[in-house]
Amino acid sequence: MSNNRNVTYPLPIKIVGVGRYLPGRIVPSSELEAKCGLPEGWCLRKQGVRERRWVGDETISFMGAEAAREAAADAGIKLTDIDLIITAAHSFEKAIPEDGPLIQQRLGLAGTGIPCLRVTAACVSFLAALDVSASLLASGRYRNILIVTTEITTGKLDFSNPAVCTLMGDASAAVVVVRTPPGEASGIHAVSMETYSEASDISSVSGGVGHSTLFRNDVLADDFVFDFDPQSVRAAGIKYNQKFLARLWPPANKDSFRLVIPNQASRLTIDFMKLSFPSDRVMSIIEQFGNCGAAGFPLAIYEAVKQGRISRGDMVLLEGMTAGFTLMGIVLTY
Amino acid sequence: MSNNRNVTYPLPIKIVGVGRYLPGRIVPSSELEAKCGLPEGWCLRKQGVRERRWVGDETISFMGAEAAREAAADAGIKLTDIDLIITAAHSFEKAIPEDGPLIQQRLGLAGTGIPCLRVTAACVSFLAALDVSASLLASGRYRNILIVTTEITTGKLDFSNPAVCTLMGDASAAVVVVRTPPGEASGIHAVSMETYSEASDISSVSGGVGHSTLFRNDVLADDFVFDFDPQSVRAAGIKYNQKFLARLWPPANKDSFRLVIPNQASRLTIDFMKLSFPSDRVMSIIEQFGNCGAAGFPLAIYEAVKQGRISRGDMVLLEGMTAGFTLMGIVLTY
Repeated sequence: MSNNRNVTYPLPIKIVGVGRYLPGRIVPSSELEAKCGLPEGWCLRKQGVRERRWVGDETISFMGAEAAREAAADAGIKLTDIDLIITAAHSFEKAIPEDGPLIQQRLGLAGTGIPCLRVTAACVSFLAALDVSASLLASGRYRNILIVTTEITTGKLDFSNPAVCTLMGDASAAVVVVRTPPGEASGIHAVSMETYSEASDISSVSGGVGHSTLFRNDVLADDFVFDFDPQSVRAAGIKYNQKFLARLWPPANKDSFRLVIPNQASRLTIDFMKLSFPSDRVMSIIEQFGNCGAAGFPLAIYEAVKQGRISRGDMVLLEGMTAGFTLMGIVLTY
Repeated sequence: MSNNRNVTYPLPIKIVGVGRYLPGRIVPSSELEAKCGLPEGWCLRKQGVRERRWVGDETISFMGAEAAREAAADAGIKLTDIDLIITAAHSFEKAIPEDGPLIQQRLGLAGTGIPCLRVTAACVSFLAALDVSASLLASGRYRNILIVTTEITTGKLDFSNPAVCTLMGDASAAVVVVRTPPGEASGIHAVSMETYSEASDISSVSGGVGHSTLFRNDVLADDFVFDFDPQSVRAAGIKYNQKFLARLWPPANKDSFRLVIPNQASRLTIDFMKLSFPSDRVMSIIEQFGNCGAAGFPLAIYEAVKQGRISRGDMVLLEGMTAGFTLMGIVLTY
């Protein structure tokens, strides 16, 4: 399975602005440890999570619009310069109309006609939207695309299930992408997405609940199990992820990328990447934000940019495994 | 607002196969008229609907896989030749994993890695997926894309609300699209999508509930109102749709297209197109299928192809208004 044979790389996409909105309420792990009867320090030790944000009365469209405003300002463009709004998350405020129009309205763009589209693929929805955007920019269909990923994962938390309720967080993050201006290096050098529904329930592989369904609430409970069974996780990772990476970017070695941004699903999914790449080049934001679903990728990009961990011209790997079972990877020059 | 300035048309997309799955249960209007205490002939006279299909135990992934099989066979390709599955509907079987992986599994493709993506924009989701596919084919990202739109709209019917429950139907339809082979005429000549969230509640325009939200269940009830107030519908149509069409395809006249396929939302949305184009060139399938949400477009394409109403080389307009408020139009050579 290769999706790359007919593409003329690089695909001309440049991230020109990043934004985010974090719910006002910070939930420290100590609060949840008390609530769930867990020992002090359990969340950080077991999950790698020190705190996370949970929404109060913030809505998806409110959070998305705030993140979008910051991204447009960061890009130095007017909101009216945006010619496509892509929402890329599995959370949604209303079934119809979708979040795009709701965000458009909150941005004061209600009469502009700027089109709205939703692109999803579980927790790699943001990467899927980047991929689609690259082709839309390449064909000339659009010029300034706003991608907004907002997740409220904490709508129905079960406090009798500490492995889940302590891990999840809410967040919104957005980027503005444009067609790479002539002479600049930004672009996608390789992109691949692979879905193996055989592994949507790989109990036969992992002797219980598989890696594949890591992001379903009912399975996140088994993150616990994973913690005690690193062999099965490593087996799933070896079966799919390492071969996937080798196909995506055959010359990859531990020094190929300035930064590797994995799916911010759990300490496990991040530690897994540290098997292949130097620890200090693997981005992790779960200590501060927990698992924010599909918002993890753009929020990690935001943090990487703002912390100066990536600069213009740097080669970055975005790669994650998610429910489906789907793997997705993008190699890009920022 | 024009999205077309930078595209080199035609975008190289060819529909090479069509498929569908219709639920086994045919619900004649007489059955609903009896159930709802309506006069005999009401559904056909008021709604233009003679019968519709409602699911029994059919699921979204089952219906989608059946439609996909027929589309692949019609295209003369093996299922394993597909290199992307796009699901494009607002119905979904599970939040995670999405319908794409579920359909992939039912097609016996569970170990292939064929990626799955979801693209939605209310009832123009299928058109949005066609648009995205055209750019993905143009960039070389994919070669054989399966688009599946399955809607089960009848999950929560309110039989005290005859205007809604008599209108809705269930269906799945699928197409296989490829990059247009050299020397062939198939392709997209113009495509545009515009979202006006100002009209997500245009009560000030229509004096009640607006055209914009036509596809929300709570508003479909007001189709009734529309029936008695054609002026307000015409006003909304003139405000948005006729200008949209003029921007989409400036040379358009009543003879521009071999066939015009509008959103199959109601008799009204179809009759509206007959104001601009000859009646016998405006495709309608609602008499037989009712409003099948986003599945209306691909099902109408299926019928148009199988009934011989469009042939290779014919110029076709696909155009619809949907919740958002979003307008989308595609001019293509089949």
